[in-house]
Amino acid sequence: MDANLEKYFKHVDESTAYFIDQLREVVAIPSVSADHTKRQHVIEMGKWIEKRLLGLDCEVKMIDLGNQDMQGIKVPLPPVVLASYGNDSNKKTITIYGHYDVQPALLSDGWNSEPFTLVELDDGRLVGRGATDDKGPILGWMLCLEAHQKLGIDVPVNLRFCFEGMEESGSIGLDDVIIDQADKWFKGTDFTCISDNYWLGTTKPCLTYGLRGNNYFHVEISGPQADLHSGVFGGVVEEPMNVLTKVMSNLVDIDGKIKIPHIYDQVAELTNEENETYKSLSFQNSDLINDLKADIVIHNENADSLKSRWRYPSLSIHGIEGAFYESGSKTVIPSKVIGKFSIRSVPYMDPATISKLTIEYVESEFAKLNTKCKLKVWEESSGRWWYSSPNHPNFVAGSKAIKRVFGVEPEMTREGGSIPVTLTFEEALKANVLLLPMGAANDGAHSTNEKVDKFNYIQGIKLYGAYWAEIASLTK
Amino acid sequence: MDANLEKYFKHVDESTAYFIDQLREVVAIPSVSADHTKRQHVIEMGKWIEKRLLGLDCEVKMIDLGNQDMQGIKVPLPPVVLASYGNDSNKKTITIYGHYDVQPALLSDGWNSEPFTLVELDDGRLVGRGATDDKGPILGWMLCLEAHQKLGIDVPVNLRFCFEGMEESGSIGLDDVIIDQADKWFKGTDFTCISDNYWLGTTKPCLTYGLRGNNYFHVEISGPQADLHSGVFGGVVEEPMNVLTKVMSNLVDIDGKIKIPHIYDQVAELTNEENETYKSLSFQNSDLINDLKADIVIHNENADSLKSRWRYPSLSIHGIEGAFYESGSKTVIPSKVIGKFSIRSVPYMDPATISKLTIEYVESEFAKLNTKCKLKVWEESSGRWWYSSPNHPNFVAGSKAIKRVFGVEPEMTREGGSIPVTLTFEEALKANVLLLPMGAANDGAHSTNEKVDKFNYIQGIKLYGAYWAEIASLTK
Repeated sequence: MDANLEKYFKHVDESTAYFIDQLREVVAIPSVSADHTKRQHVIEMGKWIEKRLLGLDCEVKMIDLGNQDMQGIKVPLPPVVLASYGNDSNKKTITIYGHYDVQPALLSDGWNSEPFTLVELDDGRLVGRGATDDKGPILGWMLCLEAHQKLGIDVPVNLRFCFEGMEESGSIGLDDVIIDQADKWFKGTDFTCISDNYWLGTTKPCLTYGLRGNNYFHVEISGPQADLHSGVFGGVVEEPMNVLTKVMSNLVDIDGKIKIPHIYDQVAELTNEENETYKSLSFQNSDLINDLKADIVIHNENADSLKSRWRYPSLSIHGIEGAFYESGSKTVIPSKVIGKFSIRSVPYMDPATISKLTIEYVESEFAKLNTKCKLKVWEESSGRWWYSSPNHPNFVAGSKAIKRVFGVEPEMTREGGSIPVTLTFEEALKANVLLLPMGAANDGAHSTNEKVDKFNYIQGIKLYGAYWAEIASLTK
Repeated sequence: MDANLEKYFKHVDESTAYFIDQLREVVAIPSVSADHTKRQHVIEMGKWIEKRLLGLDCEVKMIDLGNQDMQGIKVPLPPVVLASYGNDSNKKTITIYGHYDVQPALLSDGWNSEPFTLVELDDGRLVGRGATDDKGPILGWMLCLEAHQKLGIDVPVNLRFCFEGMEESGSIGLDDVIIDQADKWFKGTDFTCISDNYWLGTTKPCLTYGLRGNNYFHVEISGPQADLHSGVFGGVVEEPMNVLTKVMSNLVDIDGKIKIPHIYDQVAELTNEENETYKSLSFQNSDLINDLKADIVIHNENADSLKSRWRYPSLSIHGIEGAFYESGSKTVIPSKVIGKFSIRSVPYMDPATISKLTIEYVESEFAKLNTKCKLKVWEESSGRWWYSSPNHPNFVAGSKAIKRVFGVEPEMTREGGSIPVTLTFEEALKANVLLLPMGAANDGAHSTNEKVDKFNYIQGIKLYGAYWAEIASLTK
């Protein structure tokens, strides 16, 4: 086992140039799912993966998701690529998820080089759209499998891959596929692993065991049937935009404290044990301030910023639909405005309770205003938080794998955002999910000059092999 | 004199069919100034007027305003048409303003008939884009002059016309022309008359002697350099949108009372005499509620609605730039948001004082929040209110003219909006301005199915002749 891993690690190091060439090849396919003019490239990317997996002796099933309506244009959805390798009942089965579509990118957005041409910089950065999100990771899994085959090393686990092409555009159709295939393609899954997030910092690898949920609300205030001229009607009528502004001004304090009564009641208490875990994490408010290019950080203590991101709820006001939003000036009284805000939720907040408390609060704040305008408030969408035990065997295997590759204990992290597919896999497959990132915090996944560091890419591919080995050794 | 007017009135009645045909001809030219693909029709309309005025023995000068940049396209501006008729030093000189461009209109917007084809309905409505705003009026003045010539009646005043083609798109270049030509083309102007507003109701003619001004403010709150993801940063950073919402929520009460200290200090006191004038006006809150299709009217008393529109300031929040404004949901923390609001001003508020009080108040409200976000607040534009004495000879003449045509005293009205050209003419020409509307309150000037009633159109043309006669008789 150890000998095999040593051989594998050595081979990975020696294959660096080839692995980078492979990454160059996939980055060159501009698989931007949000742009219907690039949809054929997303599909091309799906076919590239199909061919690659067939070449690795996988069984492959391309799931056709039908068409999508984009701005009135009927556009085919890219397939979900399912693949299967190994059916040994003596081995554990791992389902691996990733996505092959990428965010939009234009040189004119501020890239220093053509975004779909991978550039290797002297400092080790491999720059290109999708390098870290999520082409580096999905390619990594395939290169890991290929390396095993080249070396004649038995793959110690059964593998099930699930690669989608719509992650950056709402993962249309994916949940249904996962649920439908839970007892078919994914049958027998013992563990799930997703490599689609990032280290907490830039130097220490991590395992991620928690995500916040999100309840998204719309608050509609309506008045006259049509927009009015503020010269003619200003002072004469009650104005929806004024009402909405007042309602939304009472949702959350400047310091992030949510003003909805009882909203914190179900939040898990911070134990001394949990509190201790924050003390050694590689997170500095000063880095955050540098990244944001502004000191707008609420908390003075580094740990408090992480606690706010990971284990406390937050409320953000995103915008308003129906009001004047362009540059310049317009003397309109908007007839109907819809405020948008959402609440990030944490263990053990019940989504239905969040919804009820929030809607009741908005209604009561509106009632206080005693206005003739009308209110409608509803929950537009809701996704639960995810929280796994960092002591689960899946995490133990991940932790040991990190120790083997990097020689350190992983940072145990949570994230403030949500990765909805995590919950879907956990619930549909009834198997533990491990989030095992390849990239670093500063990779700029959705930004200009997205990169993955050569170090992270190569060590990440080693990590995948080590993870398989450690999962396999759990059975022993 | 009276005999001439009687002859004129009779001729106008007999010319109804011809006058409607003439209106049909000008409505058919889709002179939409906001649409660059229709710009040639605006210019065509200007040339139509030039030809018409030359045919009436006017001296005509077409002022070229150069080009305009519309969405990156260089588009020629339509000319200001100046015309002059009569130079008799024994006669008074009237400058008449109007505009020959119109609002956009598509059948699909909800018109019951093709908007650029005039339709005469059984109830007397003449439906077509521009029928009332402002092609009916400008054509009316020309038909009035033509009728005098046909009847061999001496025109009792010297006339100066100023017809622009950009009123619906910001009157680009017009102010400079008026100021430049004040001592040239408009030299010797005794009175100015603008026919580009509407009756207070639908049955009684009016003269308009006041307009509100407007000070438009932008409030910018900025935080991080780029938009952030609410999952990652919610609860961690102070959010500009939350700050802006709080600042804007304290600008004005639901009942329209502005919360800026001392903002009402310069508002003219309501005298008993002024208060009496509101009692007989043909304005009903119930009509307003019907028009708005919602009871969102602040005041219970009819007169209070008019006072709020005419003689008290108001503050409206128009919208926010930089926040999420589309339909659907987006989990963004906008990095910089700009709130837009404006204050309608009334006699004797000083625009500079409004600006100072408002900016100081926004700054003090922001300071109370104790936030790390940054504030910038500025006045984007400012236009003074206009207020004329309803006892000025120009208004006396207008009033007598109405009495002659309609047999009633005019309603003396003000408007809540602004017509900036009014102030420009008054200041540049140093002559009193009378607003003498042709159309009724329900003409739907900027809306679908715009119309002018045949009654208003024909009686309006009579009114123009009577007004000239009454101005002439002032000299006697």
